[in-house]
Amino acid sequence: MRFDRIWHNARLATLSESRGGLGIVESGAVAARDGRIAFAGSMSDLPGGWDAAERIDCDGRWITPGLVDCHTHLVFGGDRAHEFELRLKGASYEEIARAGGGILSTVKATRAASEDALVAGALPRLDHLLAEGCTTVEIKSGYGLDTETEARMLRAARRLAAERPVAVTTTFLGAHALPPEANGDKDAYIEAVCRDMLPALAREGLADAVDAFCEGIAFSPEQTARVFRAAKDLGLNVKLHADQLSNLHGAKLAADFGALSADHLEYTDEEGAAAMAKAGTVAVLLPGAFYMLRETKQPPVEAFRRHGTRIALATDCNPGTSPLTSLLLTMNMGATLFRLTVEECIAGVTREAARALGRLDEIGTLEAGKRCDLAIWEIERPAELVYRIGFNPLHTRIWRGH
Amino acid sequence: MRFDRIWHNARLATLSESRGGLGIVESGAVAARDGRIAFAGSMSDLPGGWDAAERIDCDGRWITPGLVDCHTHLVFGGDRAHEFELRLKGASYEEIARAGGGILSTVKATRAASEDALVAGALPRLDHLLAEGCTTVEIKSGYGLDTETEARMLRAARRLAAERPVAVTTTFLGAHALPPEANGDKDAYIEAVCRDMLPALAREGLADAVDAFCEGIAFSPEQTARVFRAAKDLGLNVKLHADQLSNLHGAKLAADFGALSADHLEYTDEEGAAAMAKAGTVAVLLPGAFYMLRETKQPPVEAFRRHGTRIALATDCNPGTSPLTSLLLTMNMGATLFRLTVEECIAGVTREAARALGRLDEIGTLEAGKRCDLAIWEIERPAELVYRIGFNPLHTRIWRGH
Ligand SMILES: [Zn+2]
Ligand SMILES: [Zn+2]
Repeated sequence: MRFDRIWHNARLATLSESRGGLGIVESGAVAARDGRIAFAGSMSDLPGGWDAAERIDCDGRWITPGLVDCHTHLVFGGDRAHEFELRLKGASYEEIARAGGGILSTVKATRAASEDALVAGALPRLDHLLAEGCTTVEIKSGYGLDTETEARMLRAARRLAAERPVAVTTTFLGAHALPPEANGDKDAYIEAVCRDMLPALAREGLADAVDAFCEGIAFSPEQTARVFRAAKDLGLNVKLHADQLSNLHGAKLAADFGALSADHLEYTDEEGAAAMAKAGTVAVLLPGAFYMLRETKQPPVEAFRRHGTRIALATDCNPGTSPLTSLLLTMNMGATLFRLTVEECIAGVTREAARALGRLDEIGTLEAGKRCDLAIWEIERPAELVYRIGFNPLHTRIWRGH
Repeated sequence: MRFDRIWHNARLATLSESRGGLGIVESGAVAARDGRIAFAGSMSDLPGGWDAAERIDCDGRWITPGLVDCHTHLVFGGDRAHEFELRLKGASYEEIARAGGGILSTVKATRAASEDALVAGALPRLDHLLAEGCTTVEIKSGYGLDTETEARMLRAARRLAAERPVAVTTTFLGAHALPPEANGDKDAYIEAVCRDMLPALAREGLADAVDAFCEGIAFSPEQTARVFRAAKDLGLNVKLHADQLSNLHGAKLAADFGALSADHLEYTDEEGAAAMAKAGTVAVLLPGAFYMLRETKQPPVEAFRRHGTRIALATDCNPGTSPLTSLLLTMNMGATLFRLTVEECIAGVTREAARALGRLDEIGTLEAGKRCDLAIWEIERPAELVYRIGFNPLHTRIWRGH
C-alpha cells in the first residue's frame, strides 16, 4: 500500500473503543492517504510492501486524535473584561447593568458588529485553541436574538473554517436569552424562534444543530420542547444547556428528544443520568464555567459512570461566564474540580466530544477511514496533558493529513 | 537626550506608586539606555531634543513592567503526572507512596539527576513563563536535602539565567522536608541545615535568600527560627512557607525576623497580617496550590487590605501541588478564587513580586533608572490580562532593553 505520509516511531493513544482505555499502542504509526487515516496501529502490523511519499520519525512522541471542542460561544462582539473588573470591586448586578454589563451588552455589541468584525474578533480565540492541537470546534449563535444577527454569527463561524485549517460545526442558539425588544414575553419570542428564525437559518444551511438554555433565568422545559419539535421537523439534531443552576429535569428532556448532548448538568439527578445513557445523549461537562462562577454543586459523575453515560469536556468559551480558550486547562479542571480520571478527560476532548457532535464516524479516534486529524505531543505519558497547568506540550498539529 | 530605543504611542501601566492605582499613562512612551529605563511617562513629557537610535511604534498597545514570578520550585528531577493519575483513580496515600509518589519521589529523582538534566528539565517550564512576559523568576532548592544536591539545584537555577534572557534569584530551602536518611529526627536535620548546608552554600554564593516550610507536616516554628537565625548570621534575607494548612503563626514569625515575604497564608490571622504590614513583609499568595489541593480556607485578604499588608501572587510551580507555569492564569485564579481586584493582581506579579524579592529598587515598575524589562500586550484594557483564562495576549517581551 502507498501512503501520502506516515508518522512512525510514535506512541499512540488511539482512543479506539475496541482496544479499551486510551487505546494505547507502543511502537506505533499513523499513515495518511487523501486526508484520511489509512493505518493506525503497531508498526509490526503495517501491511507488507507499504511505501510512503513522506516519512516522519516521531522519536517516541505521543499521538492523540486532534482535540475537539464540542461547546463554544466563540463568535461574539465586544468584551466583558470591564464587567469582571467591576464585579471584583464589589459592584452589584444593578451597577453592572447600568455600566452596560451582562449578556445583553454582548447582544448589543454583536448586533453592532459586521461579519468581518465578528471573524476578526474570534480568530485570536480560535488560534489559541488550535495552538493546543484542536482540530474541530463547535460554535453557537445566541448573541443576536434576531434572524439577521443570528445568521451573521453563523456565517462568521462558517468563515472561520475557511480562514484556518479546522472543522467548524455550527449550532443555532436563538433560545439563549430574551432580547430586550421582546418586553419580557418569552412565549412570543420562542414562537418567533420556531416560526421565523429557525426555518430561515435552516434554509440557508447555516445550522448543523439547535440548542437552547433551559433554566429559570432563561427558558422553561415547555418552551425548550417547542424549540426541539421545530428543529426535529426540519431534520436538525438538538442539544441543551441543562440543569446548570437548578434541576428542571433538562437532562431527561434532552434524552427524550434523542439529543446529541446535554451540557453543564451540575444539578442533574439519577433519573436524568440514566435517561441520557439509554438515549445515547452525551454529558458535556463545562468546568470553566463552574470555576468562574465559583459553583460548589458538582455534576453527578458517579451516576454517569454507573449508568454508562458518555462524558465529554468543553471550554464553553464565552465572554460572560467562561472566557476560556484552552482544552488542556479544561482537562485539568475536569480532573481537579470534577475528579474525572485522566482517561475520562482525554476521551472527553476527543472521542466523546466527537460523539457529542454526531461526528464520531469521521473524527475523535485514530482509526482507519477517519479524517487524519492528529495532535503530536512532547510528553512522556498521556497523564501529563491533564496534570500540568498553563503549559502547552504540543509538538505538531495535523489537520486532514497535513 | 539620546536613547538607545524608544517605544512610543503606547499605553502604560507603570505601577508607579506616586501615580496611584496601576499608574496609567495614556499616550505614553518608554525609552531605554544601557539596558535601563531612561524615560517612562507621557509622550508630552519627553525631554526636548531627545533622539533615539531605534523607534518602535506600539500602535496603542499596553506596556507593563516585565512580570516577576517570586515563588517557584522550577528546578526538580522526575515527574509526578503518574501520581496525579493514580490519585484520580482513588489510590490512597499508602498506595501512592508504594508506587513511588510523594515529595520523596522528587527528592530521589533530583538526587539522581545531573546539573545538565536539571537545567534541561526546567527550561520548558521557564520558557512557558517567559512566553507570557516574565522577566524575573525566583527559584528554590529543597528537593536535594543534602549539601551536594541542594548546591546542584541552585547551580542549575543560576545556569538558567545564562541559558535565557531572564533574571533568576535563588533561594535555599533545605528546610523543605525531612530526608529519609534523617530517620525522623527533625532537630538533627535542622542542625545540619544550619551548621553545614547553609554556610557551604553561602560560601559559594549560591543562595540569595533562605526559606523554610513551617507546618505540622514539615518543621516547627522553633526549628524555623533556628534556620532564620543561621541565615541572618550569614547576612541572608529570609522568607517562609507559612500558615498553609494550619495556623502555626508563621506569618508573625516571618515578620519578627523581618522576612522579605511570607507565602501561602491561608490560615494567617489578623495579628499575623498586622505584623507583616508593620515589618514590610509581603504576603505572597499562591492560588495554584489552593486550586490544585481543592482548599476552601481563603487567605485573609480583607485583613491584608485593612492593615496595608502588600500582596504578591506567584505560581509556586512545583511537581506535587502546583504544576503551574502561567502567571496570567495565576492572576485569574487570584481574582476568581481569592477575589483580588484587577489592580491587586497586576501589582501582585509586578511591583509587589519585586518587593517580595527585595528587588523593587531595580525592577517591578516602569520608572527611570530601573532595568528596562517590559511586557507589551495586545489588549484593549489591563483587566483583560486577569479576565481571560488560558489565553496569551503577549506581543513582545523586552529584557534589559532588548
Ligand atoms: Zn454554553
Ligand atoms: Zn512553595
